[in-house]
Amino acid sequence: MAKSKGNEAHALEQLSASLGVQFAYPNSAKVYLQGSRPDIQVPCREIYQDDTITSAGIEENPPIPVYDTSGVYGQADVGIDLKKGLPPIRHAWLEERQDTEILPTLSSQYGQERAHDPTTAHLRFNQITQPRRAKAGHNVTQMHYARKGIITPEMEFVAIRERLKLDELLRDPRYTKLLKQHSGQHFGANIPQHPDQITPEFVRQEVAAGRAIIPANINHPEIEPMIIGRNFRVKINGNLGNSAVTSSLTEEVEKMVWALRWGADTIMDLSTGEHIHETREWIIRNAPVPIGTVPIYQALEKTGGIAEDLTWELFRDTLIEQAEQGVDYFTIHAGVLLRYVPLTVSRLTGIVSRGGSIMAKWCLAHHQENFLYTHFDEICEIMKAYDVSFSLGDGLRPGCIADANDEAQFGELHTLGELTAKAWKHDVQVMIEGPGHVPLQRVQQNMTEELKHCFQAPFYTLGPLVTDIAPGYDHITSGIGAANIAWYGTAMLCYVTPKEHLGLPDKEDVRTGIITYKLAAHAADLAKGWPGAQLRDNALSKARFEFRWRDQFRLGLDPERAESYHDQTLPAEGAKIAHFCSMCGPKFCSMKITQEVRDYAERNKGMQEKSIEFLRKGANIYQ
Amino acid sequence: MAKSKGNEAHALEQLSASLGVQFAYPNSAKVYLQGSRPDIQVPCREIYQDDTITSAGIEENPPIPVYDTSGVYGQADVGIDLKKGLPPIRHAWLEERQDTEILPTLSSQYGQERAHDPTTAHLRFNQITQPRRAKAGHNVTQMHYARKGIITPEMEFVAIRERLKLDELLRDPRYTKLLKQHSGQHFGANIPQHPDQITPEFVRQEVAAGRAIIPANINHPEIEPMIIGRNFRVKINGNLGNSAVTSSLTEEVEKMVWALRWGADTIMDLSTGEHIHETREWIIRNAPVPIGTVPIYQALEKTGGIAEDLTWELFRDTLIEQAEQGVDYFTIHAGVLLRYVPLTVSRLTGIVSRGGSIMAKWCLAHHQENFLYTHFDEICEIMKAYDVSFSLGDGLRPGCIADANDEAQFGELHTLGELTAKAWKHDVQVMIEGPGHVPLQRVQQNMTEELKHCFQAPFYTLGPLVTDIAPGYDHITSGIGAANIAWYGTAMLCYVTPKEHLGLPDKEDVRTGIITYKLAAHAADLAKGWPGAQLRDNALSKARFEFRWRDQFRLGLDPERAESYHDQTLPAEGAKIAHFCSMCGPKFCSMKITQEVRDYAERNKGMQEKSIEFLRKGANIYQ
Repeated sequence: MAKSKGNEAHALEQLSASLGVQFAYPNSAKVYLQGSRPDIQVPCREIYQDDTITSAGIEENPPIPVYDTSGVYGQADVGIDLKKGLPPIRHAWLEERQDTEILPTLSSQYGQERAHDPTTAHLRFNQITQPRRAKAGHNVTQMHYARKGIITPEMEFVAIRERLKLDELLRDPRYTKLLKQHSGQHFGANIPQHPDQITPEFVRQEVAAGRAIIPANINHPEIEPMIIGRNFRVKINGNLGNSAVTSSLTEEVEKMVWALRWGADTIMDLSTGEHIHETREWIIRNAPVPIGTVPIYQALEKTGGIAEDLTWELFRDTLIEQAEQGVDYFTIHAGVLLRYVPLTVSRLTGIVSRGGSIMAKWCLAHHQENFLYTHFDEICEIMKAYDVSFSLGDGLRPGCIADANDEAQFGELHTLGELTAKAWKHDVQVMIEGPGHVPLQRVQQNMTEELKHCFQAPFYTLGPLVTDIAPGYDHITSGIGAANIAWYGTAMLCYVTPKEHLGLPDKEDVRTGIITYKLAAHAADLAKGWPGAQLRDNALSKARFEFRWRDQFRLGLDPERAESYHDQTLPAEGAKIAHFCSMCGPKFCSMKITQEVRDYAERNKGMQEKSIEFLRKGANIYQ
Repeated sequence: MAKSKGNEAHALEQLSASLGVQFAYPNSAKVYLQGSRPDIQVPCREIYQDDTITSAGIEENPPIPVYDTSGVYGQADVGIDLKKGLPPIRHAWLEERQDTEILPTLSSQYGQERAHDPTTAHLRFNQITQPRRAKAGHNVTQMHYARKGIITPEMEFVAIRERLKLDELLRDPRYTKLLKQHSGQHFGANIPQHPDQITPEFVRQEVAAGRAIIPANINHPEIEPMIIGRNFRVKINGNLGNSAVTSSLTEEVEKMVWALRWGADTIMDLSTGEHIHETREWIIRNAPVPIGTVPIYQALEKTGGIAEDLTWELFRDTLIEQAEQGVDYFTIHAGVLLRYVPLTVSRLTGIVSRGGSIMAKWCLAHHQENFLYTHFDEICEIMKAYDVSFSLGDGLRPGCIADANDEAQFGELHTLGELTAKAWKHDVQVMIEGPGHVPLQRVQQNMTEELKHCFQAPFYTLGPLVTDIAPGYDHITSGIGAANIAWYGTAMLCYVTPKEHLGLPDKEDVRTGIITYKLAAHAADLAKGWPGAQLRDNALSKARFEFRWRDQFRLGLDPERAESYHDQTLPAEGAKIAHFCSMCGPKFCSMKITQEVRDYAERNKGMQEKSIEFLRKGANIYQ
């Protein structure tokens, strides 16, 4: 159950003190790549490797740059104070555009109340009481700028972040062999074929076309901008949020910072319990990544849980409250139309989306059309005043294999396409949410339908789980579907933890869920042929072949777990430089024998040419 | 390090005593389906469900039959004695064929020595000293019988096992809705479209054509026969085996019985350490599933680890030694040809197969062709005298993403095809081993090449891993590749545990590896549209929707883990019958709301028809 609130402030202090050193990855350094101006400092982690010692001498293994989401939390030398929050690195960019103004006070009535509620004073972050909003008649979305031909600092930032240092590396002979990779298969996507194509102008074009979004609320100046689109690296989202039943504020903040350390590209705060306004404030002020929410959860909280009592006015105030806190994207279930609801009646598991079921109940109770649909233009007006992106919710997604790809699901998807076109008229950024539970042979249809009916807006899917029979292992059943659908073109994957369907994830579940989704997203980057995606695989495999055990751990997604697993069998320090491992032991080591094969081949030049000739002849026999 | 040998016998007794009750699955019963004769008793587990209590009254939820591999270990009421071994259920079948004879003594010189070695007496199972062998001029392989039009009890057994009770269930109205499933996509495979097509004659035809194998050594009468082929359920293999560095005999036996309980269809004993002859004996005598080995490991052990000292005579004696113990399939690396070896020199990770590197070293050291290739016909003569199946080893499989699908790998695959044709001339059963490490977009090529060049012999792959960067999570990186390649047509998947590349798996790693591969194999069965594959998913999802928590756990692949995860958040017994869960809490429960939607729809008949009409009209707008 939730901790007694009095302890929260103290708990946050303790958490702050515990961060820093333990976050730093082994043998790594956070480096910043500077853009066209001094205040464009793009984070990147470099993993340093040991030398290879061979009979021929010492070979230097170069540092491997990897995409980094950990913000300052990844830096051992930075003192962390969660009560202060992160520096507003986007501040100057926002000011320079001169199209926003600082309001004297919060626009949301509820926001006002909470800001002055003495009973939650001890929980309150020293929050923004003077939010930023677009000046009258202005549109401050990244899509609006992009369509006007403007390359914002945010766009340049993400271009550098997606490219990392690949252009440099290509000119460095130490990376020549490591940068070799298989050609990709990308189902009509427009993946850059060379790092030089990953430019700020390319980013601008993708955002202008609606094929990618940069979630970046003007009230979230702390973020390091990132991009979501199928022509970029596949991203992953980690869900957090306490519920009425369990978990506390500090636990959620702690899960967030660790999720960032392990690689979450965005975080969704799905809190439904007490103090969700305050929890959200803490999360946003300490988040270097975009934060998403499902505003209907809080709106329902305000009605005491009575869906029928929801009103547009109440919901509108909630949108403004959250927009002024700095939420970067809203899940809006505007596609749950009255006429689709009865299509779910014959399903095996009906409606499993919380937001979807809330809106379905409202529609039926009033026998009126979904107010999120009827008020969609007014929602767009709010979104473009703060640059909040839409994550159009799939309220009718299938909750089991049996219900996958049915009329209710695809009916809603068509409506999401209609709403996408509407949002784009306002230059509001949009991504589309997808399932869910889908058997492997029907996963690709979800992608092709989305591309066709939603005009290539970025797809953001939950898994999908490819079987229902493995509770306790749903991070894996969904990781299989996630890797596949990301390969087909999904831009961001919402993680699933081992606790899915069973309970609320703890810190260790978050770790397992994030790493599982990082590897699924990376498998898709390889499959799509993202430039340089295979560099890390090649470096790790070379380290493996050369028995550089420590480099194997360091280059992996979870160095601590890899090392601890290794040490369970061979704890001795010596084993980490041993030229064998516990699987085969010293005499049987295949890699050791391979080295002998190489040495032998060295002494017998010309064999290889002969062999290829033999093979060609031989091969013909069987063709 | 290995336990002191004196304790082994005692440890085995303790292990025996610990089995039985704790193996029984919750709310399940082992039932046996009888074939055309009383001694054909096919195992099946039935999972019993709670009733559904609704306002309309009580709905009975029928038992769900699932494929079972646990042998007698799954039965709480059976006393287990590992020192006695399992009953020889195939004995009568073998006798009736009158084509085998009992030898007065072991044919293998090494087998003889070990049988009379006083220093290992305390470790020795009361083993077969009078093995069974084909009479002169006879061929006792299942393929030989199949090609002669004979349906053996083994064939009938697997037909019933693959079909379970689906034909009955189809006539039972309680299952009508639960048996609905999505149509499959099977890439040219000949998957039965209806349970009635899963007949003994169908099995015979598949075995005769070489598209499926029934690994069943005549010296392994204890097995419950199973089949490996892409037109049947996807199977999984679990690897065991101690190494020179760690683990003991009893630990390996314990890992085996638990692997069977969790769902391993076959077990490979990859022991390379001390007493591997004795370990193997214990494993085979207690194994209700086929056992595979890589005989070259033991042969090398006999040379003190010097690959150059290997000889055909030594290897031949090892094959006979293991064939007379009852090994059901041998991995033979006969495709590692001298001319292919130099093709691996420019690889990032060279040769990573132990057997492959041993043979490569032998070829180079002698500059002669692989003796497994030159003596292949003699090997076939041994195989058909005991009905040992080939698992033609992929000694040149890629050890990393970079080396996937290269000339060395596919060159060897062509040779495995040549050897398949040769083995089939002897009516010897064959499956083909596959990789390994392959990026997602190149996985299918492995399957299509295998089908083309190996004439549709069953494919047996290790994963493949779709990325190299997640040590500690390689069960997941490989589970993604495994689900995909099994969908494309791979017949059996060799599991990978979280310790892959890091250490020797312990019991908990075996559990995680097996469950991960069960779910990957099941995802492929769903994708291929195997009859009734979706029954278990549908039953579990119905239980989930109805908040029958206990049934959710029971119907899952790992009930204990599912329940323990649930209890971490809501330990109270009451929570297991609560109509909400910890993710949303009572007020927000989407499934609860869905039920209200259903009740509402009940009161407003005709809505659904109208909605479909609306949708049709609406849908046109976006097409």
